[in-house]
Amino acid sequence: MTPAENSSRGAPGAFVVVDWGTSSFRGWLMSADGETLAESRGGEGMLHCTGGGAGAGFAPVLRDHLARLGAPEGVPVLICGMAGARQGWAEAPYLKTPTRLDALHEGAIRIDAPGDIRILPGIAQARPERPDVMRGEETQLLGVTEPDFTGLVCIPGTHSKWVRIEAGCIVEFSTYMTGELYSVIAQHSILAHALETAGNGTSPLAADSQPFREGLSMALAEPAALTASLFRLRAAQLLGFEQRADGAARLSGLLIGTELADALHRHGPLRSMRLIGAGALGRLYEAALAGQGLDVTTVDAEQAARLGLAKAAISLWGAKVTI
Amino acid sequence: MTPAENSSRGAPGAFVVVDWGTSSFRGWLMSADGETLAESRGGEGMLHCTGGGAGAGFAPVLRDHLARLGAPEGVPVLICGMAGARQGWAEAPYLKTPTRLDALHEGAIRIDAPGDIRILPGIAQARPERPDVMRGEETQLLGVTEPDFTGLVCIPGTHSKWVRIEAGCIVEFSTYMTGELYSVIAQHSILAHALETAGNGTSPLAADSQPFREGLSMALAEPAALTASLFRLRAAQLLGFEQRADGAARLSGLLIGTELADALHRHGPLRSMRLIGAGALGRLYEAALAGQGLDVTTVDAEQAARLGLAKAAISLWGAKVTI
Repeated sequence: MTPAENSSRGAPGAFVVVDWGTSSFRGWLMSADGETLAESRGGEGMLHCTGGGAGAGFAPVLRDHLARLGAPEGVPVLICGMAGARQGWAEAPYLKTPTRLDALHEGAIRIDAPGDIRILPGIAQARPERPDVMRGEETQLLGVTEPDFTGLVCIPGTHSKWVRIEAGCIVEFSTYMTGELYSVIAQHSILAHALETAGNGTSPLAADSQPFREGLSMALAEPAALTASLFRLRAAQLLGFEQRADGAARLSGLLIGTELADALHRHGPLRSMRLIGAGALGRLYEAALAGQGLDVTTVDAEQAARLGLAKAAISLWGAKVTI
Repeated sequence: MTPAENSSRGAPGAFVVVDWGTSSFRGWLMSADGETLAESRGGEGMLHCTGGGAGAGFAPVLRDHLARLGAPEGVPVLICGMAGARQGWAEAPYLKTPTRLDALHEGAIRIDAPGDIRILPGIAQARPERPDVMRGEETQLLGVTEPDFTGLVCIPGTHSKWVRIEAGCIVEFSTYMTGELYSVIAQHSILAHALETAGNGTSPLAADSQPFREGLSMALAEPAALTASLFRLRAAQLLGFEQRADGAARLSGLLIGTELADALHRHGPLRSMRLIGAGALGRLYEAALAGQGLDVTTVDAEQAARLGLAKAAISLWGAKVTI
């Protein structure tokens, strides 16, 4: 009898799922049929846990969150995200494209520790001419797609993903460094003088404003001109054509527009697509994609991760934990 | 009688010219016919001089360099570069395109100080849809072009300039943030893990190597995909397709290729062009442009600045200082 079988018999909490990213921990206690019973979140992401050496801090952080969740002792735990990276708790090797989303759980590795703790794999596109990787997004994709889903999904963020899925199988994806470029340009380049950012400049929280839309249109019209458009943003202010207050929105528009131009060109023509988004950034992408005539279905990013983890957990333990 | 006329009569040093950039000072004592008699250089650029408040440090720095040059007392001085920026010694307002290069000296401002010290203007493209500015490069352009020159000139650097000149007149130009993007990406983004850089990562000193050429070709083929190509550079290493030692050259190739693709598309088709370059970066551009089938004439950047300053100084003072 495994600890999972032992603890979950008759208990309301059948398993715990965790979205363990670079800088955040989000855990949920779930019933056997995937209903959320409790939630625990914190800033103890991978970077926090590896502070004292490789993998050292993951087990205690998980223990604390399990206690906060009121999880039964020995409850099985399924994790996705950067905890499974080479520099994380333990490496969950990438599955290679093309790969079925509903087979994700088969690639999970088991942590060498008491109890049943597993980490879902990331996905790699091991093609020398278009190498790419994801870790965490595959679980969100599992959460928001039906087993036979065919279509394009965008997951905006620090490293935006565009994923082509055919009949439930990831066939191709591309990562755009949009969010990270926004941060490093806003904080460390000459454009820092052209932006009014809130403190650390790390979030492209421009509203769907006129300068955002202008930057977007400019980049969609001339996507190869990004590195010149960036300097023009500064020059426009020096010459009095634009105010500093508009700089952040324009930069955001330029970067998102460059991403959209390439991704839509590669995957188009399209009528509809899905967006896994959150907050202001998700709304910006939604507006930008709608502006391109696309019918966009948006799903909340956190909900997508929780649903994907629950699906995978049920695939792994569903039969055992259901009394 | 001005101090210039007073001091230069019969003296070998007829005027001093200075290329005063953001982080460097390069001054030359010249004869009335533009022959270089002495040189003095240092790190006292604009940033050094404005350390104690706007404009405070420029006069003493110039005085020291004039002494080192053995310049006659009251010698006229002509300056180009960031010393003439709004945040510099005194603002030399931009001339607007289209503007003749041989009329640059007419836009020089005179410093309110003893002697005859003037600063050449920068040039602005005051078009709302393509705003752009240069300060310093216009003087290099004057140095390397004949009065009736027609053609395209590239000046690679932190902010690369591509300048269209017709019959000695600057008609259009574009600035690409290539060098600065290299620095901020190499130092502050996730790609810092993918590069072996020498310390501060500020110079794209990749040799004309295989990974440089691959990055270049990739960007020339897909110039709109830059923000995805950057992430692929990281993914290629994670998946074992590329070594960390090749990262810097590939990044350099991607950024320079993106610049070339846009600039050559905008100005092409071309058979020949001029390049104002220096050192390893100049050689990279030379190789990249030659690879595109262009006949490139390269002129050293420092020589270009000195020649341009000398031409402008002779236009200003030539008649007076020649006995």
